[in-house]
Order: sequence, then C-alpha cells, then structure tokens
Amino acid sequence: MSNPDADVHPVATGPAAELVAQHQEPQDIVFYCGWFCPYAARTWLALEEKGIPYQYKEENPFHKDKEFLKINPKGLVPAIVYKGRALYESLVICEFLEDAFPSTPPLLPKDPFERAHARLWIDYVCKSVIPPFQRLVQMQEPDKQRVELEATINAMRTLAEKIKGPWFLGEQFSLVDIVLVPWVIRDHVIAQYRGYSREAVGAGWKEYAERLAKRESVVKTQSFEEHNTKIYRRYLRDEAQSGLAKAIRAGLPYM
Amino acid sequence: MSNPDADVHPVATGPAAELVAQHQEPQDIVFYCGWFCPYAARTWLALEEKGIPYQYKEENPFHKDKEFLKINPKGLVPAIVYKGRALYESLVICEFLEDAFPSTPPLLPKDPFERAHARLWIDYVCKSVIPPFQRLVQMQEPDKQRVELEATINAMRTLAEKIKGPWFLGEQFSLVDIVLVPWVIRDHVIAQYRGYSREAVGAGWKEYAERLAKRESVVKTQSFEEHNTKIYRRYLRDEAQSGLAKAIRAGLPYM
Ligand SMILES: N[C@@H](CCC(=O)N[C@@H](CS)C(=O)NCC(=O)O)C(=O)O
Ligand SMILES: N[C@@H](CCC(=O)N[C@@H](CS)C(=O)NCC(=O)O)C(=O)O
Repeated sequence: MSNPDADVHPVATGPAAELVAQHQEPQDIVFYCGWFCPYAARTWLALEEKGIPYQYKEENPFHKDKEFLKINPKGLVPAIVYKGRALYESLVICEFLEDAFPSTPPLLPKDPFERAHARLWIDYVCKSVIPPFQRLVQMQEPDKQRVELEATINAMRTLAEKIKGPWFLGEQFSLVDIVLVPWVIRDHVIAQYRGYSREAVGAGWKEYAERLAKRESVVKTQSFEEHNTKIYRRYLRDEAQSGLAKAIRAGLPYM
Repeated sequence: MSNPDADVHPVATGPAAELVAQHQEPQDIVFYCGWFCPYAARTWLALEEKGIPYQYKEENPFHKDKEFLKINPKGLVPAIVYKGRALYESLVICEFLEDAFPSTPPLLPKDPFERAHARLWIDYVCKSVIPPFQRLVQMQEPDKQRVELEATINAMRTLAEKIKGPWFLGEQFSLVDIVLVPWVIRDHVIAQYRGYSREAVGAGWKEYAERLAKRESVVKTQSFEEHNTKIYRRYLRDEAQSGLAKAIRAGLPYM
C-alpha cells in the first residue's frame, strides 16, 4: 500500500524553485533534498551559507526508491553523494561540510572550547527543543498538548537566554542557528493550532525568530507555504506515517 | 524525599580505584565522573586513550549538589571544567578533547569524509543501539521485551557488519568504539535477564565485544562488578529514578 504521506507537492516552489533551477549542473556534491523537510533544510542552509557548489536533486523520501536506499539505507532526506560516496543525517553532513571546505565561511567557531559550547547548544536544540515541538504538533489530548506546549516554551526560553545576538553565538551565524531555524519558521503551525506564541517565550525570542526568518539563505530556500498545509494537517491529526510521526506515536526517540 | 538511586557505592573500586588514585592532582581538566556511569565512561576512555592529564572527581549525580548544578545545569555526569569553564554531554566533551589536544592520539580520522563516516556510526550507536538496549532492560512485559531484544540485536548486527577489525574503523581505535563499549561490557545484564547473547548478533560481534572488553583503557576504568548489581536491579525492575529511566518510562527520547 502506498504511504499517503508520499502525496506531497512534487517540487519546490516560490524562491526555493529559483534556487533549485540554479543548481542543476553536475557537481562534486549531489544533494538529495525534500523541499518540505526541516532536516534537509539544515544541509541546504549550510551549503548556501558556505557557498559550496552542489547539484540539487528532489527526492520524495516516502517512496523509498531502491536507488535512494543505496545512498541512505534509512531512506531519509537529506543525503549527499560526495565524489561518489554517500553520507546522510543532517548534522553529520553539516559537520562534514565544515571539515571538508575549510576555506568557506565557518559555521562553527575555530576555538575548541567555543566550538564545544556551540555543539552543546546544538545538542540542546536536538534533544530538548525539537522533540516537544513535534510531540505538541501530534498530540491530540488537550492535557498532553498542555504538557508539550510548556516543555517547548521552556526549552526555547532556556535557549533564548543564551542568545548573544544578533545570532545565537553573537556576530557569527552558526550551526546552532541552522539546526534550529527550520522549526522556528514552522512555528506558525503550533501558534495557529496549539496556543503557542513567540511572545510567551520571552527573552528576546521573538526578535531572534524574526531575524532568522529574514536571513538570506532562509528566504531563498523557502517554498510557498500553501503546499506545506497538506503535510501539517496530517501531523496535526496524528495521521502522518513518516518515521518521525511513528516514533512519536510509539514513544520512541527520533532526532 | 531522597532519590533511592543516589544510594550507589560512593567510590570506584578495583582497577578504577587505582586509576582514580593516580588522578588526584589539580590539572587543567577537572573531570566529574560517576564510576558506574556508561556515559561518563566515554569521557574517561577518551581521556585515557589520548593520555590527557586530568583531575578525577567522583560526583554522585543523583544528589544534584548545588555546586555541581552550576557546572552542569542538567545535573548529569560526565562534566568537565577546563581552565575554569564547564562542559557536559559525553559526546560533546569527547569531540572537545579531540579538537583541543591535537597532538594526542586521534580518536577520529583526519580525512573529512572518513570523519563523517565515523560520526554517522556514532550517531547510529546513540540512536539505534543504545535506546532499545536500555528499553530492553526496563521493560517488564515479555512481549515488549521481545520487541526490544530483537531491535537491540538487529541494530548490533547492522553495526557488526560494518566492523573493519580489529576496531570498528580498522586499525584506529576510535570514538565509535568508545561511544559503544560501555554498553558492550554491560551486556551480561541483558544476557542474564533478557535472553540476549552475543552469538545471536553474529557477524563477528562476539569477537569484537571480547576485544573491546580487553582494551587497556576499558580494563583500567572498570570497578568491581558486585557494586553495579544494586544499580542494575533497580533498572531491571523498572524502579530506577534517573533521567534516563524516567524518560524511557514516559516514552521520551534520551540520549
Ligand atoms: N535524523 C534525520 C531525520 C531526517 C528525516 O526524518 N527526514 C524526513 C523528511 S522531513 C524523511 O525523510 N522522512 C521519510 C520517512 O520518514 O519515511 C536527519 O537529521 O537527517
Ligand atoms: N546525555 C548525557 C547522559 C548522561 C547521564 O545520563 N548520566 C547519568 C549517570 S549514568 C546521570 O548523571 N544521571 C543522573 C540523573 O539522571 O539524575 C551524556 O551523554 O553525557
């Protein structure tokens, strides 16, 4: 039986469509992306911020194409093929880009301690901010939604209190911002349906969120919002069948 | 009410006690460890493998000492203080040691792609091997235990099939081995109480596990097994009150 999640709009639209059109030529990096995917967005943002040449390939990860499973046995986007060798997991790819292209704009501080400090907050975003956010979207019972809303807002506040400004680490736009921003620009979903507001976070979160949304790389990788609605609706009704949706339903970790 | 988990043997014993005794002098790195903790073991192994000087401090993370919460607001071991600045999260600390002490034996390959490949399998250990292992320990219902046993063995087999030998990446003992080994040397718990066996994994897993258990750094950081029994018993009865135990009970991610 085919996965109803697979029925997403087939290609990027809006500003992202233009960017995709500019990245069709063969390059050392072939980037397998889903235009709608917040994890793939991390890799896309890192490529854009660093100005690394890449060939964009739209991959619908719900089809589990045999050829794609050879690249990522988990069948998830993002994935890249670099000079014939495959890599996946959004964060692993971002760290790879940082290591493999040392003369491009850095996304992590050079100083080992500052770098570790950045990784600590990347870890915090992945473990403490995104999981309650995703659970909040999927939970159906009001009391569970309340718990997850509070957890989401509290985790965001902890993060917000550490923002140096204008970006998380200060003047340097970094992997901390990149790992987080795909969820920040999707927070209208929990605002509209789950009682979230940026104001409720406080500590400058709203201003930081607005700054993130205006970042050139973020604007350029965005598709028209209307095509996302169908996807969100399935999550909001807890009907989605992605690995993420199933893991949350089963109470299993997903990051 | 005090947390009954806090009632662990107060200090390292056996070979680990000797190692602790040799690491009492002040150093640039103060290492806050729980002798029993598999996460802290990662940091300890990295310090030992790299031969980095450190001052060992035993910290009972269940007491949530105010002073320790200033170092790690999560109140978890491992944590380090490096020249007065605090870091935590076992993997973040290991990566820091790799970055900050470049002239010590490397735990990650220098080549960016090989390094990313190592990080991919570190990610796999953290997301796919350890969570079902820990759930297997805590689950009480036989059918749930069966599911988790199968998931644990399957994940280990996927990993086993990638072992280059003698260590995961080949000749280089690496962070992949380090991140995993604390669970490998505790697998007697799931062998004794949950029907696991190294043989059931196949693909050279048993030989790899035995090799890991004999690694000098692993032997040196071990305490007498008898003091662990009380800890395991609480997990096996699903009575433990650690962050890990509670997260598993609540179906929340913990890594
Ligand atoms: N941990 C992965 C998660 C990637 C992920 O879940 N991608 C989704 C799209 S947003 C996917 O490919 N889903 C397909 C599926 O779950 O079957 C990463 O960080 O790259
Ligand atoms: N993600 C952390 C986990 C550390 C952890 O859970 N440590 C345990 C001891 S094994 C702890 O401090 N537990 C205290 C508690 O849960 O209250 C890491 O990798 O460092």
